[in-house]
Amino acid sequence: RPGVWKMLMVAACVALLSGLQAQDLPGQVSIILLGATGDLARKYLWQGLFHLYLEEVEKGHHFRFHGTALTSTEQGQEVIAKVLESLSCPGDMAPGHCAELKAQFQQLSEYRQLKTPEDYLALSKDIKAQVEHEGLRETGRIFYLSVPPFAYVDIARNINSSCRPGPGAWLRVVLEKPFGHDLHSAQQLAAELGSFFREEEMYRVDHYLGKQVVAQILPFRDQNRAALDGLWNRHHVERVEVVMKETLDVEGRTSFYEEYGVIRDVLQNHLTEVLTLVAMELPVNISSAEAVLQHKLRAFAALRGLQRHSAVLGQYQAYSGQVRGELQKPDSFHSLTPTFAGILIHIDNLRWEGVPFILMSGKVLDERVSYVRILFKNQAFCVQSEKHWVAAQSRCLPRQIIFYIGHGALGSPAVLVSRNLFRPALPSASWKEVEGRPGLRLFGLPLSDYYAYSPVREQDAYSLLISHIFHCRKDSFVTTENLLASWVFWTPLLDSLAHEVPRLYPGGAENGQLLDFGFSGGHLSFSQPLPEQLVPGPDSAPLPSDFQVLRAKYRESPLISAWPEELIARLAGDIEAAAVRAVRRFGEFHLALSGGSSPVALFQQLATGHYSFPWAHTHLWLVDERCVPLWDPESNFQGLQTHLLQHVRVPHYNVHPMPVHRRQRLCAEEDQGTQAYAEEISTLSPAGLDGEQLVVLTTSPSSPHRRMSLSLPLINRARKVAVLVMGRMKREIAMLVSRVGHEPKKWPISGVLPDSGQLVWYMDYDAFLG
Amino acid sequence: RPGVWKMLMVAACVALLSGLQAQDLPGQVSIILLGATGDLARKYLWQGLFHLYLEEVEKGHHFRFHGTALTSTEQGQEVIAKVLESLSCPGDMAPGHCAELKAQFQQLSEYRQLKTPEDYLALSKDIKAQVEHEGLRETGRIFYLSVPPFAYVDIARNINSSCRPGPGAWLRVVLEKPFGHDLHSAQQLAAELGSFFREEEMYRVDHYLGKQVVAQILPFRDQNRAALDGLWNRHHVERVEVVMKETLDVEGRTSFYEEYGVIRDVLQNHLTEVLTLVAMELPVNISSAEAVLQHKLRAFAALRGLQRHSAVLGQYQAYSGQVRGELQKPDSFHSLTPTFAGILIHIDNLRWEGVPFILMSGKVLDERVSYVRILFKNQAFCVQSEKHWVAAQSRCLPRQIIFYIGHGALGSPAVLVSRNLFRPALPSASWKEVEGRPGLRLFGLPLSDYYAYSPVREQDAYSLLISHIFHCRKDSFVTTENLLASWVFWTPLLDSLAHEVPRLYPGGAENGQLLDFGFSGGHLSFSQPLPEQLVPGPDSAPLPSDFQVLRAKYRESPLISAWPEELIARLAGDIEAAAVRAVRRFGEFHLALSGGSSPVALFQQLATGHYSFPWAHTHLWLVDERCVPLWDPESNFQGLQTHLLQHVRVPHYNVHPMPVHRRQRLCAEEDQGTQAYAEEISTLSPAGLDGEQLVVLTTSPSSPHRRMSLSLPLINRARKVAVLVMGRMKREIAMLVSRVGHEPKKWPISGVLPDSGQLVWYMDYDAFLG
Repeated sequence: RPGVWKMLMVAACVALLSGLQAQDLPGQVSIILLGATGDLARKYLWQGLFHLYLEEVEKGHHFRFHGTALTSTEQGQEVIAKVLESLSCPGDMAPGHCAELKAQFQQLSEYRQLKTPEDYLALSKDIKAQVEHEGLRETGRIFYLSVPPFAYVDIARNINSSCRPGPGAWLRVVLEKPFGHDLHSAQQLAAELGSFFREEEMYRVDHYLGKQVVAQILPFRDQNRAALDGLWNRHHVERVEVVMKETLDVEGRTSFYEEYGVIRDVLQNHLTEVLTLVAMELPVNISSAEAVLQHKLRAFAALRGLQRHSAVLGQYQAYSGQVRGELQKPDSFHSLTPTFAGILIHIDNLRWEGVPFILMSGKVLDERVSYVRILFKNQAFCVQSEKHWVAAQSRCLPRQIIFYIGHGALGSPAVLVSRNLFRPALPSASWKEVEGRPGLRLFGLPLSDYYAYSPVREQDAYSLLISHIFHCRKDSFVTTENLLASWVFWTPLLDSLAHEVPRLYPGGAENGQLLDFGFSGGHLSFSQPLPEQLVPGPDSAPLPSDFQVLRAKYRESPLISAWPEELIARLAGDIEAAAVRAVRRFGEFHLALSGGSSPVALFQQLATGHYSFPWAHTHLWLVDERCVPLWDPESNFQGLQTHLLQHVRVPHYNVHPMPVHRRQRLCAEEDQGTQAYAEEISTLSPAGLDGEQLVVLTTSPSSPHRRMSLSLPLINRARKVAVLVMGRMKREIAMLVSRVGHEPKKWPISGVLPDSGQLVWYMDYDAFLG
Repeated sequence: RPGVWKMLMVAACVALLSGLQAQDLPGQVSIILLGATGDLARKYLWQGLFHLYLEEVEKGHHFRFHGTALTSTEQGQEVIAKVLESLSCPGDMAPGHCAELKAQFQQLSEYRQLKTPEDYLALSKDIKAQVEHEGLRETGRIFYLSVPPFAYVDIARNINSSCRPGPGAWLRVVLEKPFGHDLHSAQQLAAELGSFFREEEMYRVDHYLGKQVVAQILPFRDQNRAALDGLWNRHHVERVEVVMKETLDVEGRTSFYEEYGVIRDVLQNHLTEVLTLVAMELPVNISSAEAVLQHKLRAFAALRGLQRHSAVLGQYQAYSGQVRGELQKPDSFHSLTPTFAGILIHIDNLRWEGVPFILMSGKVLDERVSYVRILFKNQAFCVQSEKHWVAAQSRCLPRQIIFYIGHGALGSPAVLVSRNLFRPALPSASWKEVEGRPGLRLFGLPLSDYYAYSPVREQDAYSLLISHIFHCRKDSFVTTENLLASWVFWTPLLDSLAHEVPRLYPGGAENGQLLDFGFSGGHLSFSQPLPEQLVPGPDSAPLPSDFQVLRAKYRESPLISAWPEELIARLAGDIEAAAVRAVRRFGEFHLALSGGSSPVALFQQLATGHYSFPWAHTHLWLVDERCVPLWDPESNFQGLQTHLLQHVRVPHYNVHPMPVHRRQRLCAEEDQGTQAYAEEISTLSPAGLDGEQLVVLTTSPSSPHRRMSLSLPLINRARKVAVLVMGRMKREIAMLVSRVGHEPKKWPISGVLPDSGQLVWYMDYDAFLG
């Protein structure tokens, strides 16, 4: 399918370019701005259209601009007239010329009410008649939907049924965010829109992609390939920060904001787009929208899933009051909507593994500024004492590249590259060196320590994007695939944070260190403990003040019970201790592990917290395996590989997956997988169970039903057997099992009774206490 | 053996402790200082002995001190008398008491010439007679050898044959560095000494281990376990620096220095000992010398081997002139002995993997200072702009622990811990907080940003060590195993650097950035290119100014030739391109790799330089394998695992080692290893070679002789075959092979003629041009 789209896109663009040259009649483009009297339109879009007109009219393009809304014709005309009067030309244009062009633009612009299907039909008819009347050929129509999302579907239906241009002319429909509230709603909206428009007809605006510095990220990476090639990876990058700080609150917008919050408003779209531009593999040809999209999607696919602990949330103190006031909520109402978020993202590919990507945005902070900062590792050693270091040159000073999107102390968009890094190449026609600003420090260094470039002419994001729509530059817009990939990434986090109480902050510089956060082992947390007076409601659940491990008996064997984190730490510690003892005594340790979801936390703990684990002398076996290929996501081995093997150094020949997949068949008796595994076990760790079956094929009540397992007699030869039971879901079964006798046929677990080894139960409080 | 030593050591120490209490007669210890008139003895050792006397005499110990040398009795007595007169008491001792004790010490000390076997016999006799005469029992004898190493063996022989104390009393022999010049000479010396003394009788001094701060490293780690446990690893440590900077030159000592240089003089011993104290796993009981030694040895075992590129070398400009002057060398003489070295060390265990340990030392630098600095990663994000950061508290300021061994701006030994890290525990009896020093900055921060502790009473390293010898604290000394482990580590680097021309530096602050160095991918290099005027001799080999890749033909196939680095980069790039194409087209890529040493660089290049390599879809096969177990260091698979598999993420089931080891036999025909591998290949990548043998057992002219290999018909089915030929040693064979025809029996390589694929030769200039 991507291939087909590419063909269509190329076709559409060729039609545009050839429109003027190859056809007999000159072409006209009609631009219909829906919501033409709204805030966004008045502030940015009309100006953007005028800018497009100024740029293109001299090249011989013909335009008509139709401002539309639900407003009555008279009222609308009045508003539009005012807007048109306020349009401005670029600073370097002669006033007379400007006035002339402005008058032309006003002449070509009209307001009309667009409400009913008939209105759309009439609009289409009028356009056709007018084009014909002027002896032109219709090149295409741009519908710019500056309307709330609930209106999209109706409008889309009307455009599709009544307002498509005739054959040979193209249709482009421009959509403004929000594009859904989560994956489900975004899919729904995408499906609905997809029933009216083809993918290449839709232009979803993320206005961040129109910001000059953001639009420069890929060209910068492309034009500085030689310098960046060796640097742009985990060996050299210490961290990446994608930041959008705001000083304003959301007063007057709480009805929108209360439903969305900072993650949906800023992170899921703007900051994520910027993140992918930094993280994606650089296509050979960055002007291929198709290649850029494919590489972006690959970057999305490599993002490690977010968990509750990947985020810290805050809310400015006045927020709930504003919501109560604007939305008539009772005094007892406290909103959980975050107005501040810090997120830690990891990318699981070889380029970025281990590099923290920090996304941060918030309202009512101490300054307004947006930037992406790539901080490089200090890989230098400076022999002389610091007082001899040469400013801007010493390799021991921080080295960074900053895409300074705007505002802040610098006050304008810029690309900054530390002088001890390299002199960047930027297109000199559009970027100029920033003039010196004595005393100005940015990111720990004086401005003079950077090669700093800003745009020769600052341009508004919407003007840039409108120009890109006209020129068919789809890579500046969010495709359906891209949008859904982003929601796939963010939705689980949003779900898991739904009931999280955000930390309250006073706002502005008073926040002090309250919102600072730190990360460790993939977890994010505020650096400062919560000051008492800021704790919100009275109903935060009581937690045990310290994590005590409970010891008891279960089925006449020792039971260890604790909160999950502590339980896993204890189990991992016990396994390590057993491993160290075994290796000291026998030179090797044999560890058979179960699959499923419970052990995942154990695998992670073993992978990250146990530096002395004798992996080089450990053999890893499976206790059971599903009859699926080893590369199937359902495979227990796959889980073991992902969460443990990739992070530790177990020699290849010490890893023993179960041979469930032999001769391209799954668990076929005649392939003798059980015998082969039994033989492997006997060779490496003789159990002295001659004649007994060591490995068996079984069926499980849950899918996939067929399994291969170690036999009970073999399990019972182990020196240590640990049974891990976690989660409230296991409560009932744990109760039941506590009462059954020795019934291994019905309850296999009741057959686990080590001959001379020790059995220990590890149950978390949820499973044990319910 | 370690177990036996431990028993003996314990026995020796018990004898000491029980000496006073359990026996009838009070015991006496004789201390024989050989080289008693030398520099070291006069400056430190006599003072150390006096210090020991002051400490122990009050506890009821009896001592006799015998200063000896080759000097005549009269001359010696004169020197010693002067030395004894200059001894000083601790500052807090009353002058009268001091004078009294000094007089006692002088009385107990004598000088005697010790030259011939008869002298030793006489000494032993005299000690025995004197002990008996005073009604004491002999507890033990300490021989402190402050003599040049060439004298060791003779002295040792004499002590062993004529001067051992009687039964029930112990012998301790103290040795001063150098302990050899490389592994071979160190082994030789150790073997010779080992023929005279038991391991527990020898105390090898590394005076760095007597420095108060160095001696505090393990106790600090022990007493701050709770705070450090989670921090002391690769997830939190950014780098470790072990530094000893000196301002002095080696004038007057060039005859020694010219033979040793900075690595042997400082890095192999002092800095390496410090490194192991930081890097080793912390024993549960740090007062167990045996446990400390075992953990140190394990740390040595985990050090990644050094290569030529692990070091940068320098030499102060005046050095060669000093050598010429002192050693009567001709004007044309230029020394290659380094007086400056920077070394990058990596430790291949889970705790430290990826953390750079930087060792640096040099003469004639800008300041005198020694320290170990553990810099932690910045894992915080500070939300407010920098101007709001709180000094000493912000988590975004550098966090570090510094063991400040001495000198430098602080001027005294100290332990520094950043205040934004944790408040450290130090024994308050011996460590006190450093007083404020406004304006003093250390490692980028004001002193006030640290918790800073210095010793309550500064103590000289030799005093401490002499006390430790008396108290049998062997963990402050270098055992034979420890010493040899260090030489095992350093000798290959020293060999590979033997002909390296060090960079000349002017000395002092004038060095500027000349000696700054950086690291990348395990390689170390000076940050600044070499300034022309400092280039030494005229005979540096000409190098091609740029690395051009030569294209030609060899055996009628394309040949690519270049310098090794460029050649490997090219080959890796070609393999990646083939992999990407194959995965795009077929969904998978099959790569069969050869073993031996040539491909190691290729493996490393693929592991570190190719982020887009589709490893998840790549199957790895062996072209040939030696008939050894897979875990044998000779195994080709082992090389593949170490240099490639450990660093990339190839799924376990995509890795296909050759089954050379089945049923505990090697390459036995009846185990059908070749058939099994052929079947594996046919299943995953059908070659369409029914009936042909795909895998064969072969014999190689070089050991181990038996091999398993892919057959020529199978190799010739490949789409791409690359043959890599590197090094001068391959020159002749490359010449020969260029002339042979199709003789696969005699020259297997001549049988490589892909049916429809492409054969490319990759030869470095050495192999191709000789």
